[in-house]
Amino acid sequence: MSRILTMGEIMLRLSTSNDCRLSEAKQLQVNYGGAEANVAISLANFNHQVSFASKVPNNPLGNAAKKHLHRFGVSTEFLLFGGARLGSYYLENGVGERSSSVIYDRAHSSFTEMERLEWSMDELFHDVELFHVSGITPALSAGWATMTHHLMKEAKKRQVKISFDINYRGKLWSYPEAGKVLATLLPYVDYCSAGKLDAINLLGIEEHELDDLSSYYEQINKIYPNIEVFYSTLRVINSTSDHTLVGTIWSNGSLYRSKKHYLAPIIDRVGGGDAFSAGTLHGILSKCDFDYTVSFATAAAALKHTIYGDCNQFSIEEVEEFMNRQDQRIIR
Amino acid sequence: MSRILTMGEIMLRLSTSNDCRLSEAKQLQVNYGGAEANVAISLANFNHQVSFASKVPNNPLGNAAKKHLHRFGVSTEFLLFGGARLGSYYLENGVGERSSSVIYDRAHSSFTEMERLEWSMDELFHDVELFHVSGITPALSAGWATMTHHLMKEAKKRQVKISFDINYRGKLWSYPEAGKVLATLLPYVDYCSAGKLDAINLLGIEEHELDDLSSYYEQINKIYPNIEVFYSTLRVINSTSDHTLVGTIWSNGSLYRSKKHYLAPIIDRVGGGDAFSAGTLHGILSKCDFDYTVSFATAAAALKHTIYGDCNQFSIEEVEEFMNRQDQRIIR
Amino acid sequence: MSRILTMGEIMLRLSTSNDCRLSEAKQLQVNYGGAEANVAISLANFNHQVSFASKVPNNPLGNAAKKHLHRFGVSTEFLLFGGARLGSYYLENGVGERSSSVIYDRAHSSFTEMERLEWSMDELFHDVELFHVSGITPALSAGWATMTHHLMKEAKKRQVKISFDINYRGKLWSYPEAGKVLATLLPYVDYCSAGKLDAINLLGIEEHELDDLSSYYEQINKIYPNIEVFYSTLRVINSTSDHTLVGTIWSNGSLYRSKKHYLAPIIDRVGGGDAFSAGTLHGILSKCDFDYTVSFATAAAALKHTIYGDCNQFSIEEVEEFMNRQDQRIIR
Amino acid sequence: MSRILTMGEIMLRLSTSNDCRLSEAKQLQVNYGGAEANVAISLANFNHQVSFASKVPNNPLGNAAKKHLHRFGVSTEFLLFGGARLGSYYLENGVGERSSSVIYDRAHSSFTEMERLEWSMDELFHDVELFHVSGITPALSAGWATMTHHLMKEAKKRQVKISFDINYRGKLWSYPEAGKVLATLLPYVDYCSAGKLDAINLLGIEEHELDDLSSYYEQINKIYPNIEVFYSTLRVINSTSDHTLVGTIWSNGSLYRSKKHYLAPIIDRVGGGDAFSAGTLHGILSKCDFDYTVSFATAAAALKHTIYGDCNQFSIEEVEEFMNRQDQRIIR
Amino acid sequence: MSRILTMGEIMLRLSTSNDCRLSEAKQLQVNYGGAEANVAISLANFNHQVSFASKVPNNPLGNAAKKHLHRFGVSTEFLLFGGARLGSYYLENGVGERSSSVIYDRAHSSFTEMERLEWSMDELFHDVELFHVSGITPALSAGWATMTHHLMKEAKKRQVKISFDINYRGKLWSYPEAGKVLATLLPYVDYCSAGKLDAINLLGIEEHELDDLSSYYEQINKIYPNIEVFYSTLRVINSTSDHTLVGTIWSNGSLYRSKKHYLAPIIDRVGGGDAFSAGTLHGILSKCDFDYTVSFATAAAALKHTIYGDCNQFSIEEVEEFMNRQDQRIIR
Amino acid sequence: MSRILTMGEIMLRLSTSNDCRLSEAKQLQVNYGGAEANVAISLANFNHQVSFASKVPNNPLGNAAKKHLHRFGVSTEFLLFGGARLGSYYLENGVGERSSSVIYDRAHSSFTEMERLEWSMDELFHDVELFHVSGITPALSAGWATMTHHLMKEAKKRQVKISFDINYRGKLWSYPEAGKVLATLLPYVDYCSAGKLDAINLLGIEEHELDDLSSYYEQINKIYPNIEVFYSTLRVINSTSDHTLVGTIWSNGSLYRSKKHYLAPIIDRVGGGDAFSAGTLHGILSKCDFDYTVSFATAAAALKHTIYGDCNQFSIEEVEEFMNRQDQRIIR
Repeated sequence: MSRILTMGEIMLRLSTSNDCRLSEAKQLQVNYGGAEANVAISLANFNHQVSFASKVPNNPLGNAAKKHLHRFGVSTEFLLFGGARLGSYYLENGVGERSSSVIYDRAHSSFTEMERLEWSMDELFHDVELFHVSGITPALSAGWATMTHHLMKEAKKRQVKISFDINYRGKLWSYPEAGKVLATLLPYVDYCSAGKLDAINLLGIEEHELDDLSSYYEQINKIYPNIEVFYSTLRVINSTSDHTLVGTIWSNGSLYRSKKHYLAPIIDRVGGGDAFSAGTLHGILSKCDFDYTVSFATAAAALKHTIYGDCNQFSIEEVEEFMNRQDQRIIR
Repeated sequence: MSRILTMGEIMLRLSTSNDCRLSEAKQLQVNYGGAEANVAISLANFNHQVSFASKVPNNPLGNAAKKHLHRFGVSTEFLLFGGARLGSYYLENGVGERSSSVIYDRAHSSFTEMERLEWSMDELFHDVELFHVSGITPALSAGWATMTHHLMKEAKKRQVKISFDINYRGKLWSYPEAGKVLATLLPYVDYCSAGKLDAINLLGIEEHELDDLSSYYEQINKIYPNIEVFYSTLRVINSTSDHTLVGTIWSNGSLYRSKKHYLAPIIDRVGGGDAFSAGTLHGILSKCDFDYTVSFATAAAALKHTIYGDCNQFSIEEVEEFMNRQDQRIIR
Repeated sequence: MSRILTMGEIMLRLSTSNDCRLSEAKQLQVNYGGAEANVAISLANFNHQVSFASKVPNNPLGNAAKKHLHRFGVSTEFLLFGGARLGSYYLENGVGERSSSVIYDRAHSSFTEMERLEWSMDELFHDVELFHVSGITPALSAGWATMTHHLMKEAKKRQVKISFDINYRGKLWSYPEAGKVLATLLPYVDYCSAGKLDAINLLGIEEHELDDLSSYYEQINKIYPNIEVFYSTLRVINSTSDHTLVGTIWSNGSLYRSKKHYLAPIIDRVGGGDAFSAGTLHGILSKCDFDYTVSFATAAAALKHTIYGDCNQFSIEEVEEFMNRQDQRIIR
Repeated sequence: MSRILTMGEIMLRLSTSNDCRLSEAKQLQVNYGGAEANVAISLANFNHQVSFASKVPNNPLGNAAKKHLHRFGVSTEFLLFGGARLGSYYLENGVGERSSSVIYDRAHSSFTEMERLEWSMDELFHDVELFHVSGITPALSAGWATMTHHLMKEAKKRQVKISFDINYRGKLWSYPEAGKVLATLLPYVDYCSAGKLDAINLLGIEEHELDDLSSYYEQINKIYPNIEVFYSTLRVINSTSDHTLVGTIWSNGSLYRSKKHYLAPIIDRVGGGDAFSAGTLHGILSKCDFDYTVSFATAAAALKHTIYGDCNQFSIEEVEEFMNRQDQRIIR
Repeated sequence: MSRILTMGEIMLRLSTSNDCRLSEAKQLQVNYGGAEANVAISLANFNHQVSFASKVPNNPLGNAAKKHLHRFGVSTEFLLFGGARLGSYYLENGVGERSSSVIYDRAHSSFTEMERLEWSMDELFHDVELFHVSGITPALSAGWATMTHHLMKEAKKRQVKISFDINYRGKLWSYPEAGKVLATLLPYVDYCSAGKLDAINLLGIEEHELDDLSSYYEQINKIYPNIEVFYSTLRVINSTSDHTLVGTIWSNGSLYRSKKHYLAPIIDRVGGGDAFSAGTLHGILSKCDFDYTVSFATAAAALKHTIYGDCNQFSIEEVEEFMNRQDQRIIR
Repeated sequence: MSRILTMGEIMLRLSTSNDCRLSEAKQLQVNYGGAEANVAISLANFNHQVSFASKVPNNPLGNAAKKHLHRFGVSTEFLLFGGARLGSYYLENGVGERSSSVIYDRAHSSFTEMERLEWSMDELFHDVELFHVSGITPALSAGWATMTHHLMKEAKKRQVKISFDINYRGKLWSYPEAGKVLATLLPYVDYCSAGKLDAINLLGIEEHELDDLSSYYEQINKIYPNIEVFYSTLRVINSTSDHTLVGTIWSNGSLYRSKKHYLAPIIDRVGGGDAFSAGTLHGILSKCDFDYTVSFATAAAALKHTIYGDCNQFSIEEVEEFMNRQDQRIIR
């Protein structure tokens, strides 16, 4: 059976309850996550064989990250131990009109400070069908921009499909910096998570008519005809606690949309996009049709918002039961 | 002063907070409840003298169930101690689009395994004015279907009024099984909680025009002219966290409706129907008019949704203060 | 640099979580607050030099109140230690249709039982630019009605500006009692927080056309031409968990209104008005224009509702960032 | 079946965990208790029919006190509702060398402010076999000193046995004040809990040879020959967390001692004496011999120290199982 | 690399904090464990490849048990899903003189109700070096007594070493019942955990001189010369919170003893024996000498008592660091 | 009134409860502390005017550190805001035989990365009577070794007394590194906290007879005759939960010893030495005799071990009440 490989940083997240400011908190909730680790866990929940490659310190926090991945069945064969520290971030959870805010404390982490790819490429990609990485990884350092490019080249050499989630983070790099790196990566990408703002801000597509998402994808696709699938969510933010979410998948000139999900109240917004990515990749790998896939992926993303923690914890059966439900009656 | 008797199973409920899946929970909230126990407690809060008859194991969990009833002033004179275990269930509390779900672990409980009525009928019904039981009790076993029938007969012999809440649970029996047993019980019932779906699925009434609830009750009433009062709630489920609730009482050809309550956010949905039942029975026993009764009962049910735990904890004065409030301003 | 002085009672607040009744609570959250203490803390957060004058018992609870003020940088030079007890109150937090309710246990407190002003007036008002007090203080006792009047006279003698928040509490005094005392105080007031109901119930203004707030202020202003600024919030209470809030400032014939804030869900409603008062006073002291001031003050009040505890904890920069935000996206 | 009556104040206790000072506590544990209420609950656990007479405010805290008593099966027929407030106290739990400390906030409570006995004496003592009260009750006010005396007279008129626990509290009255009142009460007492220090400080017995407890009892007995039984515990305090406890009962010239219990670590020391009192009274009422009784009562007291809260929660069977255990092996 | 296989029941454990009785608990801590599962996890922590074979229901609790095993790297290839329920037990944690107590609710579990071995023996024992099972498994039912025997025969056929921990549980079977079954199993056992009481009560060895443990082992060894190693702990129980522990290993006529560990305070006593078993098996499999092995295994058992939960969580390095420490100074 | 100045790093401490390993923790307790900050807070509790100089990032964590200092009345006039991050450390709290362990994550902090003293020396030392710093500060970087030296020179220039706590941390520097730097600092020191091991390992004093602490101090004193007072604690570690503590002060050839304190159980060992330092400095500044001072300081240190968090929270009165107590009886 072929495998999925995701690579990126896994961090310690320390978060407040939503009624308390970080500066007043007497205790913090502990969680471990990162874009690619979250995708790995979701895909493992969907019965795929998944490895997560990263580097964490050889201390209890690195060990905790490993156990978190193990818990959900993600292989840590390519999780390296070493370096100085586990990247961390503080999440002050907002509510209503007050936004959530993040304080990164991820500099000098074991993963960020990696200067070379410490794995054998042959072992890393052995039997791998799909490689998924997000735009956070190349944003971490100049080295990681180069290493991400190198990984994609190595993957492609081995006929591995590549999924890339642009996942732009303004605290890590600027639009021009990101745009330059993305231009080196997108030629390798098969499945790309990007939205209208990514198109305009990072890929140089000119802004035009509202919500005509397809035309943006078409224009990107002209530049990067290798991209088979674009996937993204349209999120309307009524308040920190109340969003609506519609998923979209574009492929071969057609745009598929999920129904609209009402996310209210939101328990934890972090990782919603990763859940959607995993749902989309599950559909693609399982050769489901795009109507099903976009519905499944958006349902998975909607469910993610209802539980605490970065990573989605629902099985295929649970996501499907949720997709098919008429109402929220208790079954008893 | 005459008494009220309710009978049924009381269970240990172990529930998650609404941000955490059961499989990830590190701690569970403990509660004790069951349809008839909940009604007993509400009625005791409304100053009635109430006994709850059941059987629990002679261990700390059985003891805890007894203390829970005592706390609210319910008599446990007819609570038997013995048998193997306290039935329990796990409640994974949902939120927003994610439903709550229940895992029953109630098989082989002390109550379910009862094979005969271990009380003296004369003592049990001594001075009893009203006997209340729900459809969960006859659903537990063939023995309990028969015993419920026997209890109703014994009650009727002694001029005890009978309240019966159909309370259909799909995890306990099928429509045809339930329908067959209900046909043996309904001839004894004076006050019956039933809704449109019960009429159609269980009592063989043909479906017709939307929401014409009266006509369903009239048809049931033709079959069971002994039923003086039908009571029920109309619940619109916008999401797990957001319902509206309207209470109805039908009697003698007239339908009485409460105002619409907006339940958002819902803290705990379990026991909402039992709170309505208790409110209705309180109105009937206190000889209040039906307009007041349906308003009071629905107000009680609405309040129940705002607190954690199965059982309602509001007094007559508190329910009435709530009914008469103009807004939710803090009084200070 | 000149100082702000606020004076009043600081109390221990013991509150339930919003899913639990007070009579069932196994633990209570601890907080310290009071109208004038809350205003003091907010103003200290806005970089003003603030003293809070009061009296607390010389025990761990009095000490905790002092530490609470210190934490936010409020001077306790004029916080006296002595007397019998710290006033306290119990807050049963409501949710949805269920209101929050307060049980006061503030009688016989160190502050309430004060029979004379134990400070030197010269020291108390030394270098003070603004004195703020609420209508709760004169409501505590006949002595405090007189002492409040005396304090205002002493302040005015020294050219100290006076801010007064009517803050009517029906559990402390009746409309006629309050009206009589207010009539002795208002001639000294420069900035007055009052609403339409205060005008009608306490100041003898006749009720007229809906929401024509300006005309009420104009009428009060005719009686008390010394009042330069009226400030108030218009709160629409959809449920305990869901309000809208608009702030207003009236000055010199013009009414300034903030945009409408949607407060849902509300984490803690107590202290919302105090946050607005502090925001208004900050604007006045900083010589901001009224459009900015009313926006700033209402934004501060809106933020207050999103955190637990009586006192607002946001800095000028944080309130302004909030005012200028387009949506509630996480910044990362 | 005859009843037991206890009377006294029941208070709200707010306590810290033992790692946190009261002035730093963010939450407080809630408990309800008082010497006589604790004895009532223990005796109800031992299957006696017990009433607790007191007065509490008609608010959620008074209601919570009632529910607490109900939970353990104590009758509240003679619990009056009215007055201003529930007495409360704050308990800062110590550990190791740091003592626990109590801040009383019990002045002006509904019970303390009672000026006359609001019960019918005939109803109160109807069918009562034993009346138990502690020295805290007459210490509360001059009125309560008189009323306690009156109650004892009324009890004795009706052949009710009287148990009295001297329970001296230095924060409530001085030795001379207490001594004077005790002299009016002891002539009515049948069973008296008193220790050597009580004899010396309150009853005017001259201090003599160490630990010759019998001789003190003999001297008191000469003055009050009506006292049939003295009961007391000898507690050696190694640290706040580590005590040893030996129980003693004196009757008719003989002193009975329990084995020594090692209380380490102590979970909650409050109520240990009340548990011993209840155990002793249970033995006397059940006509057990004094060797058994002193062992039972001390075992009950030892168990009390291992659980949180004022009141003991163990049944006769559990206390006996504890008395007869060889070691602390888990039974499984 | 060869594998270890353990088999048995994994249960949901619901436990109280040590200051609260089960009947008063408002929440319960959730843990998953069982003798053989605990051994599996400890061995996985010691870098062995371990599988745990069992059967759990296909519901969130079964899923949670699986995730618990995954977290520590135990393979669940042979964990079957099906049957009615997960066995559970309630643990009321004691303290000081009060014992911990267990209420089993394990009847009718998916594992207990198994009637045949649903695995292929060839797959189950493929590449297995060691099979470990405890006496709890054959105690569950007559079927499991037979199936355990069958498993041992199948293991032996394939040259798999067998470790057996007698682990007598009086709540599951009587001495004679156990003795009869053990007689069928011990002929297959290579490494046996048994103590003096097991020898006397179960294996028919006559009691003789105190603490001469070797002679008991010698006598058992005469009957079952196949047993190469006996391992056991000598536990002195000073109180629930305070034990001492010495480990022993007997082999080939020699008895090896660890130093004495002082366990005070004990955080969680459950699983201490399993940690010792795992430590012993680790030493044997790693071909360490018995002096090291008994020290290592007892150190692991001592560490287990300092953390909450059934399963030990320490690595080889951590156990060794603990063995070699001079004192408990913080390293910083 | 003259002031005290302390300077050093203040860190975020994230700690587990003592029953849970860091890698399993779902939440962490939040605290702020550091050797010099802890001393500052203790001295402020003893009514001294204290400033703490340091640098923290301009984010919620830096703000929280400031609020923590404010809470206890420490001036933050010299607390700079800037730099990248707040140093942090993780504390896995041990129990019994299991040690506590610390994972530092303090590299690259705002304070450590300081390259020059950003304060005006004149302002910093204005009116300062005593400057206290620990050996952790010069250990942070070569720059800080130089800057500490510079600060001492500047202090001495202004007749400021200098207190220095050697506080050797093996994770920050080696013995030779430390020894070299100490040699540059000790010539400025008036009051020095050092123990026998410091003398031997860092100051080159030869080891000799056990416990003859005076002779070590005499030898150091010969080299550094400027040191007027040596202060230290002798700690016997029976287990992580159980220590004994004796304080010592040496001055002018005489050694003063406190009584022995029994610390069992220990709630939080971190900051015990800082509490002793603060107690000693309080005695010196208040011109108390050394017998009182060593008793006071050791009592303060003993109390520190009974509460959670780095900083001691007891007033002079509370420490003295503790010193003078006969036993741990509750006062009530």
